[in-house]
Amino acid sequence: MLYIKIERFALKGDIIYSETQEKFTCNEDSFLVCVDGRVEGIYKVLPDCFINIPVKDYTGKLIIPGLIDMHTHGPQYSFRGLGMDLELIDWLNKNTFPEEGKFSDAVYAQKAYSIFVKELVKGATTRACIYATVHMEATKLLMDLLELTGLKCMVGKVNMDRNCPDYLKEDMQESIANTREWLQETLHSYKNIVPILTPRFFPSCSESLLKELAVLQKEFNLPLQSHLSENKSEIEWVKELCPDTNNYGEAYELGGVFGKNGPVVMAHCVHSPAEEVMLMKDNGVFIAHCPESNTNLSSGIAPVRTYLDHKMKVGLGTDMAAGSSNSIFKTMVMAVQVSKLRWRLVDGNLKPLTIEEAFYLGTKGGGAFFGKVGSFEKDYEFDALVMDDDKIEHPGLLTLPQRLERVIYLSEGRHIAAKFVAGKNIFAFD
Amino acid sequence: MLYIKIERFALKGDIIYSETQEKFTCNEDSFLVCVDGRVEGIYKVLPDCFINIPVKDYTGKLIIPGLIDMHTHGPQYSFRGLGMDLELIDWLNKNTFPEEGKFSDAVYAQKAYSIFVKELVKGATTRACIYATVHMEATKLLMDLLELTGLKCMVGKVNMDRNCPDYLKEDMQESIANTREWLQETLHSYKNIVPILTPRFFPSCSESLLKELAVLQKEFNLPLQSHLSENKSEIEWVKELCPDTNNYGEAYELGGVFGKNGPVVMAHCVHSPAEEVMLMKDNGVFIAHCPESNTNLSSGIAPVRTYLDHKMKVGLGTDMAAGSSNSIFKTMVMAVQVSKLRWRLVDGNLKPLTIEEAFYLGTKGGGAFFGKVGSFEKDYEFDALVMDDDKIEHPGLLTLPQRLERVIYLSEGRHIAAKFVAGKNIFAFD
Repeated sequence: MLYIKIERFALKGDIIYSETQEKFTCNEDSFLVCVDGRVEGIYKVLPDCFINIPVKDYTGKLIIPGLIDMHTHGPQYSFRGLGMDLELIDWLNKNTFPEEGKFSDAVYAQKAYSIFVKELVKGATTRACIYATVHMEATKLLMDLLELTGLKCMVGKVNMDRNCPDYLKEDMQESIANTREWLQETLHSYKNIVPILTPRFFPSCSESLLKELAVLQKEFNLPLQSHLSENKSEIEWVKELCPDTNNYGEAYELGGVFGKNGPVVMAHCVHSPAEEVMLMKDNGVFIAHCPESNTNLSSGIAPVRTYLDHKMKVGLGTDMAAGSSNSIFKTMVMAVQVSKLRWRLVDGNLKPLTIEEAFYLGTKGGGAFFGKVGSFEKDYEFDALVMDDDKIEHPGLLTLPQRLERVIYLSEGRHIAAKFVAGKNIFAFD
Repeated sequence: MLYIKIERFALKGDIIYSETQEKFTCNEDSFLVCVDGRVEGIYKVLPDCFINIPVKDYTGKLIIPGLIDMHTHGPQYSFRGLGMDLELIDWLNKNTFPEEGKFSDAVYAQKAYSIFVKELVKGATTRACIYATVHMEATKLLMDLLELTGLKCMVGKVNMDRNCPDYLKEDMQESIANTREWLQETLHSYKNIVPILTPRFFPSCSESLLKELAVLQKEFNLPLQSHLSENKSEIEWVKELCPDTNNYGEAYELGGVFGKNGPVVMAHCVHSPAEEVMLMKDNGVFIAHCPESNTNLSSGIAPVRTYLDHKMKVGLGTDMAAGSSNSIFKTMVMAVQVSKLRWRLVDGNLKPLTIEEAFYLGTKGGGAFFGKVGSFEKDYEFDALVMDDDKIEHPGLLTLPQRLERVIYLSEGRHIAAKFVAGKNIFAFD
């Protein structure tokens, strides 16, 4: 006879999450039951079958889904909050490439990635899509460090075979050979970490490189991440590099890396023309909206309302170090803020985002890229944050949605009492 | 023979501050000498005359001027981060007035103001211009609480005699009589706190009320604060209320409260037409730029570059609760950020603010409203913050300006090791 141990427990507290973009689902003073890493249900009183399971009592605290960072750069963490006076291409050349070059040195990589990972695990993020650098060894190191945290992450060795400094430039064949080797080493080595294909962006990847990555994507059934239509000069550059296409998205489509060969997330989409938007929608491409990054690099404001109206797949990204903060709460706030400025200054037809919509994007919206993630509906993976929002003092009484809104605006990385990913308690809070 | 005890001490650390908007003044590993509450000088080696003074050793830490909040609302602290889906007039009616009404109750006022003051003293602000409510008793309570902190603040009992709910509306004569009584009680009662005249904004103050306040301003030689050209509907409303004037500023000028009878600070100035700008400049009116507030209420983005080009007096304001944060560091970041969006989306001729300019605005720019405040030049009042920026980990070496930039972007209210106001150590850090 075979016995399988099923892990079961419950968290007790004030539960709030998103099923839809329109409103929060609230369960005051209730039990959130986890069975084998997934949400089994929410109960005001535990039913008989769960009466003896362990209960972690967080009465009076908020329990919300873990936050999903759809787009960030591990090696750039060191220069977040620095040199914010440039636009994309100059910023890459002056700040980013020199810093990324340092990750050929394993000692430096260890030092820098340790800081990045330590801060990530301390924050509210439970899952992230992360760019590493072109360096295979440093990328594996980052994956090793992340694996130990219990966070579920997709990590990408970057591919670049043109338009970047020699110290980062790969030969196309070598880039693919290294990527294949890296995939073979990492695809089944981790419990929490999976590799994600990562052509940096079109200007630094030849069409042949993209086509080879498309083959790998299909062969290994992998997700893929890149950047799209972030900055106007970048878009002009893509037009020069690939004159026969109508838009930036089509250049990726030509390379086979725009959703037809596997799941794709594209960061930014600030200036996507209508045809590109439709291509993304048709191909099921995810959009990682990165409002702080788009502000800091003077890129502009993405028309997220348009993407929501089209029922496209959208999540949020911190995009460090163009974004200065690793907090998806802060990203939610900025998503609302810049949507207001866009509405006021650019297009009065696109209504600002609500806080409910921003929270949806930072949980269930981005979570969909990871499967059934980012909500407390039945069978969703059990990613939960417990927020001790009492610490944000208030002289009166507040509703659950008000308490969540205050956590989003005011917690600033503080007041996390516990964090669970797929049912596992994250050690930093254990 | 008369002996006067002169207090003298020095702080040792990495000193950085603004003399001009263009660049930081840096003194690595130096002594900042305080004599009788003012900056005496900065020395690499202490001169003989100071060889025996007490030295607080903050080696390796950043020493910067205290931050100046030119505009905030004490009673609104409770609903910061809440109900951010409205524009100014609706937001006042739905959120602000009902909350301010509660301050007729001394018990509630004590509870709410205690939270506001506790958080203010814990943060990086050393001086602030603060709106209270129309209630005299609660306003005195706020002043009492602030006095104990050692922060130097200007606090205003609000005046309103029209266009507000009955529970807040004052009769004009009663408003002036109460204000006179409040001034007599508070003008010389505090060491750190001074009253500031506070007509809420033109729509809620009759011309006669303004004229009486102008008399008080002259008689008592007082500063005055109000709001100007924040929101387009508000500006239209002022035009209806005061049809014979060419702009909102002229309506205040007509009331005698626009700088001719004493120092005035006006919050916002988002949509000020050229004539209003010139009137402000001619009258020496200070502008409190409140970028987070202007974003959250969808007001727009103030053309701060224009004001700097005109060499006008500008500082920064958090404007809680339209702003969610009490941090002037965060306000500096948002000042830079929204200036980039304005440049990208509205007017490519007005270059974005630099971090040097934003820091200047939040220290010496706003400090000028308080006298010689906000810099470490000789004879400036000794307001200093000691920042333990080592806690914001970095894998390499950083210059002083880089360390300051990281503090501004990343400290999020943390890492304050000490705070001094006019030479006094603030107890929360003592």
